[in-house]
Amino acid sequence: MIRTPVNIIVRSGYRASAPHRRSVNTLKDAVMALRQPAWHPPPRQIDQPVLKIFNSLTKTKTEFIPIDGSHVKWYNCGPTVYDASHMGHARNYVTQDILRRIMSDYFGYDVHFVMNITDIDDKIIVRARQNYLFSQFRNSATALSADLLSQVSEAWGSYVRENVSKGLPDEEKPSRGDEEIRWPQIAGLARDQSRKLECLKRDEKFDMHFTAADRTLAAIEAARHALSANQSSGNTALRLIDESRDILASALDKKLQDTVTDQSVFRSLAAYWEGRFFKDMERLRVRYPDTVTRVTEYVPEVVEFVQGIIKNGYGYEFESSVYFDTGAFDSSDRHDYAKLEPWSKGNRELLAEGEGVLSSTSGRRSASDFALWKASKPGEPSWPSPWGPGRPGWHIECSVMASAILGDRLDIHSGGIDLAFPHHDNEMAQSEAYHECGAWVNYFIHTGHLHIEGLKMSKSLKNFITIDEILQRFTARQLRLAFLTQLWNAKIDFSESMMTGEVKSLEVTFNNFFTNVRAIISQARAHEDQSDGEHHHNDAERELMKSLYDSKTAFRVALCDSFNTPEALKVIRDLVSRINIYINSSGRKANVSVVEQSATWIGDMLRMFGLGEGQASEIGWGQEDEGAGGVNREETLMPYLRILSSFRDGVRQLAIAKNDDALKEILKLCDKLRDDDLVSLGVALDDQEDGKALVKLVSPAELIKAREEKRLKLDAQAAKKAAAAEEVRQKRLAKIEKGRVPPEEMFRPPNVPEGAYIRWDECGFPTATGSGEDLSKNQQKRARKEWDAQKKLHEEFLAWKKEQESVAGS
Amino acid sequence: MIRTPVNIIVRSGYRASAPHRRSVNTLKDAVMALRQPAWHPPPRQIDQPVLKIFNSLTKTKTEFIPIDGSHVKWYNCGPTVYDASHMGHARNYVTQDILRRIMSDYFGYDVHFVMNITDIDDKIIVRARQNYLFSQFRNSATALSADLLSQVSEAWGSYVRENVSKGLPDEEKPSRGDEEIRWPQIAGLARDQSRKLECLKRDEKFDMHFTAADRTLAAIEAARHALSANQSSGNTALRLIDESRDILASALDKKLQDTVTDQSVFRSLAAYWEGRFFKDMERLRVRYPDTVTRVTEYVPEVVEFVQGIIKNGYGYEFESSVYFDTGAFDSSDRHDYAKLEPWSKGNRELLAEGEGVLSSTSGRRSASDFALWKASKPGEPSWPSPWGPGRPGWHIECSVMASAILGDRLDIHSGGIDLAFPHHDNEMAQSEAYHECGAWVNYFIHTGHLHIEGLKMSKSLKNFITIDEILQRFTARQLRLAFLTQLWNAKIDFSESMMTGEVKSLEVTFNNFFTNVRAIISQARAHEDQSDGEHHHNDAERELMKSLYDSKTAFRVALCDSFNTPEALKVIRDLVSRINIYINSSGRKANVSVVEQSATWIGDMLRMFGLGEGQASEIGWGQEDEGAGGVNREETLMPYLRILSSFRDGVRQLAIAKNDDALKEILKLCDKLRDDDLVSLGVALDDQEDGKALVKLVSPAELIKAREEKRLKLDAQAAKKAAAAEEVRQKRLAKIEKGRVPPEEMFRPPNVPEGAYIRWDECGFPTATGSGEDLSKNQQKRARKEWDAQKKLHEEFLAWKKEQESVAGS
Repeated sequence: MIRTPVNIIVRSGYRASAPHRRSVNTLKDAVMALRQPAWHPPPRQIDQPVLKIFNSLTKTKTEFIPIDGSHVKWYNCGPTVYDASHMGHARNYVTQDILRRIMSDYFGYDVHFVMNITDIDDKIIVRARQNYLFSQFRNSATALSADLLSQVSEAWGSYVRENVSKGLPDEEKPSRGDEEIRWPQIAGLARDQSRKLECLKRDEKFDMHFTAADRTLAAIEAARHALSANQSSGNTALRLIDESRDILASALDKKLQDTVTDQSVFRSLAAYWEGRFFKDMERLRVRYPDTVTRVTEYVPEVVEFVQGIIKNGYGYEFESSVYFDTGAFDSSDRHDYAKLEPWSKGNRELLAEGEGVLSSTSGRRSASDFALWKASKPGEPSWPSPWGPGRPGWHIECSVMASAILGDRLDIHSGGIDLAFPHHDNEMAQSEAYHECGAWVNYFIHTGHLHIEGLKMSKSLKNFITIDEILQRFTARQLRLAFLTQLWNAKIDFSESMMTGEVKSLEVTFNNFFTNVRAIISQARAHEDQSDGEHHHNDAERELMKSLYDSKTAFRVALCDSFNTPEALKVIRDLVSRINIYINSSGRKANVSVVEQSATWIGDMLRMFGLGEGQASEIGWGQEDEGAGGVNREETLMPYLRILSSFRDGVRQLAIAKNDDALKEILKLCDKLRDDDLVSLGVALDDQEDGKALVKLVSPAELIKAREEKRLKLDAQAAKKAAAAEEVRQKRLAKIEKGRVPPEEMFRPPNVPEGAYIRWDECGFPTATGSGEDLSKNQQKRARKEWDAQKKLHEEFLAWKKEQESVAGS
Repeated sequence: MIRTPVNIIVRSGYRASAPHRRSVNTLKDAVMALRQPAWHPPPRQIDQPVLKIFNSLTKTKTEFIPIDGSHVKWYNCGPTVYDASHMGHARNYVTQDILRRIMSDYFGYDVHFVMNITDIDDKIIVRARQNYLFSQFRNSATALSADLLSQVSEAWGSYVRENVSKGLPDEEKPSRGDEEIRWPQIAGLARDQSRKLECLKRDEKFDMHFTAADRTLAAIEAARHALSANQSSGNTALRLIDESRDILASALDKKLQDTVTDQSVFRSLAAYWEGRFFKDMERLRVRYPDTVTRVTEYVPEVVEFVQGIIKNGYGYEFESSVYFDTGAFDSSDRHDYAKLEPWSKGNRELLAEGEGVLSSTSGRRSASDFALWKASKPGEPSWPSPWGPGRPGWHIECSVMASAILGDRLDIHSGGIDLAFPHHDNEMAQSEAYHECGAWVNYFIHTGHLHIEGLKMSKSLKNFITIDEILQRFTARQLRLAFLTQLWNAKIDFSESMMTGEVKSLEVTFNNFFTNVRAIISQARAHEDQSDGEHHHNDAERELMKSLYDSKTAFRVALCDSFNTPEALKVIRDLVSRINIYINSSGRKANVSVVEQSATWIGDMLRMFGLGEGQASEIGWGQEDEGAGGVNREETLMPYLRILSSFRDGVRQLAIAKNDDALKEILKLCDKLRDDDLVSLGVALDDQEDGKALVKLVSPAELIKAREEKRLKLDAQAAKKAAAAEEVRQKRLAKIEKGRVPPEEMFRPPNVPEGAYIRWDECGFPTATGSGEDLSKNQQKRARKEWDAQKKLHEEFLAWKKEQESVAGS
C-alpha cells in the first residue's frame, strides 16, 4: 500500500492536547508506526443537482451562476403607489417572496434584495391632483346654488360626451347640450343586455362610465328639485358633490390642474399608499426588502444617469424632454434593443402605455423611442435639470436605483410578466447604454399572470379583488399555498374551487399530520429514557428513513429545477402519507424518533416557504390564531394537561370496572371534561382502547365544530332510537288493548255480532252457531286457537293493568 | 452578432399568459423580430469556497465530499451513562452541536446525526452493583452491633491496604491488622505538604483515598464509643454506614457480586443517567440527535456482527469470549489497523483502559487484540450467544449500531480526541473487517481536550465541574460562546478569566448592539413611509453595505476552513464595530434599513451557532430571561411604551421651559418614571438632546444594576459637594468669628496682650506703644491696614448676627 509520510512534528503540534501518558513506548515503535495509511477522497455516488432558473432572456432553464461567490444582487420591480393593492400584486409579491426565501434560506445565497417604490408617475399625478382639487372644491361648497348646479351639469355633459360616448354606436352619441335629452335612450340601451354587450365591445369600461353618469344625473335632478323648493343647505350641496365625485374630479382637474403647485400633494398620496402596500405585504408574510428605494429620493442621480446616456450617444433632447434613441442603440455592435421581447418592438399600444397619459407625443426620432426625462407642465411635480424643470420617465428610475445600490451588473432582475416589454427591455437598454456593457442583467425572471375564475381581473369585469378583501376570506397561509401549488412563471387561475378544494385539502392534511405527530411525541417524551429492550428500528423504519432522505433529495431536485414548488409540495405530501401509513400500522409500537425527524424536516421546509406561524421551535408550521404573542402553547401547557389527563384516566378506569350507579357520575364528569371544559381550551382527548387517552392541542374552533358534528350525529341516532321505541310501545299498547276482552267473553256479543252463536260452554267457548248447528271440526279448531291466543293476550293485559295500578297507587 | 434561433411555438406556450392585445403587428415584423439575442453564462468573478474539514485520518484539512449528494451520514460517539455529565462532556457535545448546526443550517446538508448511548459497560456494572448491594445492606441494618462494626472495620482495613497504600512509601505501607495502629503516622504524612506531594506522585488519587479512609475511621471510633455506651439505635448504625459508603460498597461488591442476578439493576442506573445526560444537553441547547441507539437494544445484532467478523477470518473465540485478530487484519492487503494512531499500536495502558476493569486478560493472540464479546461472570449482565452467555465488548457497539442505522459507509464519524485510540481505531477495524471494505469512515473528526485553569480536569485535583455546577455560574450561551472562540479541534483552557474577560465582553458587545439597533429600528418604524426627500444611501452607507457582504463572504470562508468559528466570530464582531461607528457618526440621519439588514444577518448567524434564545423573528439573538414562554416583548410592548414615552417627553419639555416650582414635581415624576417605575419592567429611557428619549428594552437586572451604579456615582458626587460646602461654611464661620471683635476694641486687651499699647484714639486706634513711644510710620501703616480689615470683618459679623437673630425670631 502507498503510505503518505506525515511529519511527526506537524502532527505533534496538533496533538499537544493529548494526555501526557500517551507517549510512544520505544524509539523503535516510534519509527515504525509514524505513518498513517493513504487516504483517498470519497467517490461521489450521487452528484448534487445545480440550480437552474427559467430565464426570460433565453426562455429556457439556465444554470444559475452568481458573479461573486454567494452574493446575489437582485432587483425587483416594486409597485406604483396610487391605489389599494390587489390580487395581482399578491400573486407577484408573494411569489417573489417565495423565490427569495428559497434562494437565501434553502440554497444559502447571500441575497441582497432591492425593491423600488414608484412614487413619481402620471397615474399618481392625476389621482393626487384630482383628490386635492375635489376636496378643495368640496370644502368651499357652503350651500346649494344655481352656480354649483350648473358646474356639475357642465361636468356631467362633458363626461357623457367624452366617456360614455366611447361605447355608444355613432348614431347614439349625443352632441353638446344634447346629453340630458338623449339620456333616457342611452339608459334604455344600457338596460338591453345584447345592445349593452355591443357597447362593452366598443369600450370595456362602458358599464362603469354609464353607471357613474347615471348616478350623477339622479343627483343633479334631486338637487334641482331641492333648489326649486328653496332647500339650499350645505348638506344638500355636499350630497350633490359626493354623488358626482368621479365626474367632478376629472372636470376640476381639466380646468384647474395648473393651479396645483404644492409638490406635497403628490408625495402624500404616494406615502399613504406605500404605507398601505407594506401593511398588506406584512399581512401576506412577504419579507421586507433588504433595500427600498423611492424615485423622489433619486432625482439628482436620474439627471446624472440621463446625461451619461446622452454622452454615450444614445439619448437626445427635444423641447426640454429627453428621449432614448432606440435606433442608435440597436444598430450599435455592442447592443441589442428589446432582448426580452424583440417581437414587441414597435408595438405602439404597449409603448404608449409605458409612456403614461401626461407624456408629450411629438419630437421622437422613432416610434420606439421613449422618454428618459419628461418636461413638466404646470400642475405636474418637477425637479431642476439641465433641460429645464421636469421629472424622470418611468423606465429610467429602475436603471438608476438598481445601479446606485447594486452597481453595474445584476445577477437577478424580477417583476411581473406584463412589465417585460417595454419596461424591462427599456430599462436594460438604458443601463447598458449608460454602463456601456453587454449584459446588465444575467437572469431576468418574470412571475406569471393571475386570472380570477378564468378571466383577467379588472374593475370593469367586477372581479377585482383587493388584498384586504381576499384576506377576509382566506388566510395568508392559504393564499401562499395556492401560489405554491402552481409554477411561479405559469398563469394562475385563482378560483373558489381551487381554494376550497386542493388548497384546503393540503392545509388540512398538514394540520392533521402535525397535530397527530405532536401528540405522539409528547406522549413518548414522558418515557424517553425508558427502554423495552427493543430498538424499534426494523424494516418499516429503515424504509421510512430511506423515504425521508429520498424525499430530501427529490425536494432539492425540484427546487433546483427552476423552483418547481408544485413538485416540491408533492414530495412533502407523499412523505406525509407514508408517515401516516406507518403510524397507523405500527400504533403504540411506532418509532417516535423516526416520525419526529421526518415531521421536523417537513415543518422546516414549509416554514422555509414562508408558510410558518408562531414559534419556530415547535414541530410543524405553527398555528395562526394562537394569540398572546406566539407563546409556545405546546411547551407551556402540555405538562399540566398530561397530569390532568392521567388523573382522568384513573377515575375513568375505576368507574368502568365497578359499573355502579354512583360511578356513572364520574364517567359523566369525564365526558364533561372532554366534551365541554377542555374543548374551549383547544384540548382534545382521544380515548384509546388501552385506557390512555391521546392528548392533542387543536384550535378551539375546530374542536367545537367536531363536537357539534358529534352531537348532531348522536342526536340523530337518539331520535331514530326513540322513534323505534315508540313504535314498539305503540305495538305493545295495541296488543294489550286487544287483550282487554277475557277469552270467556270473546265469542259473546258485543265482541261478535249478535246472533253469531247461541250457545256457549262454561269457558265461553261457542258450542252452537246462530243457526243452532254444532260447530264443525274446523270451526272448533280455529275458535280454540283464537281462544287460546286471547287467553294469553288477556293475561298480559291483566298483568299490565296491575302494573299500571301499582304505579298509579305508589 | 450571433443570434440564437428560438422556436416561437415553444415560446408562445410559455407566453400563453400574455394579454390578448399583445399580438404581433404584421407578419413582416413577426418574422423579423422572432429571435432573442444570444445569452452567455455569466463569468464567475469570485468562486464559492469549498468546505474543508480537518480529518483525523490524514491530520490535514481535506475537501468534504459526501457520498450521496447532500445526504450526510454522521455517527457521533455518545456517553457511557453511569455518572453526572461534566465540563468535558459539555465541551465535546456542545462543540459537536455547533459543527452539526453549521453543516445543516448553514451549509444546508441533509445531515442524519446518529448517537449511541453506552448502557453496557464495566463501569456501569460495578457502579450499579455497588449501589444496589450498599442500599440492600443499609436497608437491612436495624441497629448498631458488634458484628456490623467488625464488618466495617474489616472493609476499612482492606481499603487502606489496597488503596491508601498505593501512594505510601514502601516502609509506611501497613500490613493486615496493622492499619489502625499505623494510621496516626499515615495521617501525619498526609498533613505534611511536601511528603503528601510525593504520595500524589505515586498515586494521583492518594488524597481521595486518604480522605475517605480518615472519615470512615472517625465514624468507626464514634460507633465503638456509642456501642460501649449501649447506644445501638438504628440511627447510629446508619450514621456509621453512611460515613463508610465508598469503602463499604467496594467491600460488599467484592464479597457479594455473584448474588446480583437481576439485570434491571444495571439497566435502571443507565436509564437514570441517560435521562440526566439529555436534560443537561437540553439546558446546553444541544439538539437531540436524529437517532439515538442503546447497546442493550442491539445485542442480537452485535452477536451477528461478531459472527461475521469471525467468518471473514478476523476474530477468534477463547473461553467463551471472542477477540479481534489485529495481526490477521493488519497483515491483510486490504486493511490497515490503527489508521488514526498507528503510533499507539501496542500501547498497553491505553489498550487496558479500552478493555475495562472486568475483562479477562488471558487467551489473546496478541497484546493488541481486543474483546468483541466478553463472557459474563456471575453478577454481570449477560445475553445468550453461540459462545455462551456474555455481553458486547466496548468497541463493537459503535460498529454495529452505526452500520445498522447508516449502513456500510459513513461520511463523518466524530468523538472526543481521547477516543481516537483504541476505541475509534478498533471500531474502524471491526467495521472494515465485517463489511470487507477499505474505508468505512471518510472523515473522522475529533474535538479537542478541555483543561481547567491550565490543568487536566480530575476529581482528585478537585477541579472537576459538573454541567449542573457550571450552569449555576454561567449561562448556556456564555459557555457556547467560550467554545466558539476556540477551534473545535484545539485544546481549550477553560478559566475564570476567559469567562469574565473575553466571553463576557463579547456577550455585552452583542447585547448592547442589538438593544441599540432594535431601539433605532423601532423608532424609525413609526415613520416608515415618510420621506425627507433624501435616500440616505451615500458613501458611508455604500461602504457599510460592502462591509456587510464582505463579512458574509469572510464568514463563509472561515466556516469552509474547517469550521473556523473563532475567525467567523471575529468577522461578526468587526462588523458590529463598523456599524456602531456608523450609527454614532450619523446619529438620527442613520440609514436604518442598512443597519437593520446587517443586524438581521448577525442575529441569524449567532442563532445558527445555537446562541439564540426566545423568538427567532426578533432582530438579535433573543434574551434568556424573558419568562412567559418566549413572548416577543419587542412587538408586544413597544407600541405602548412609545405612547408612554412621548407623553413623558411632552411633560418634561413643558417643565423645562416654564422653570416653575410646581413644575419641578413634574420633572421628579419624569425621573421617577425613568429610574423607578420602568426599570423594574426592563425599560430604559435614554434622554436625548433633542428632547426625544430613546426607548430600549433591556433585562431588568441589567437596568437595576446600571441604576445602582448611577446612584452610587451621584451619591459620591453629592458627598463631595457637601464636603466642599461644609468647608466653605466652616471657613465663613471662622471668618465671621474673627469679625466678632469691633475694630475699636481690637487693639485693646484682651485682644492684644495687656500693655501692648497705652494710648488709643476715639476709633480705638493705638497712638502709643506699651513703652509710651509713638508708633512708627510703618507700625501705623500696618495697624491701619489691620483696623480697616477688621472693620470689614466686623460689619460682616454684624450682618450675620442680625440674620441669625431674624431667623431665630421668625
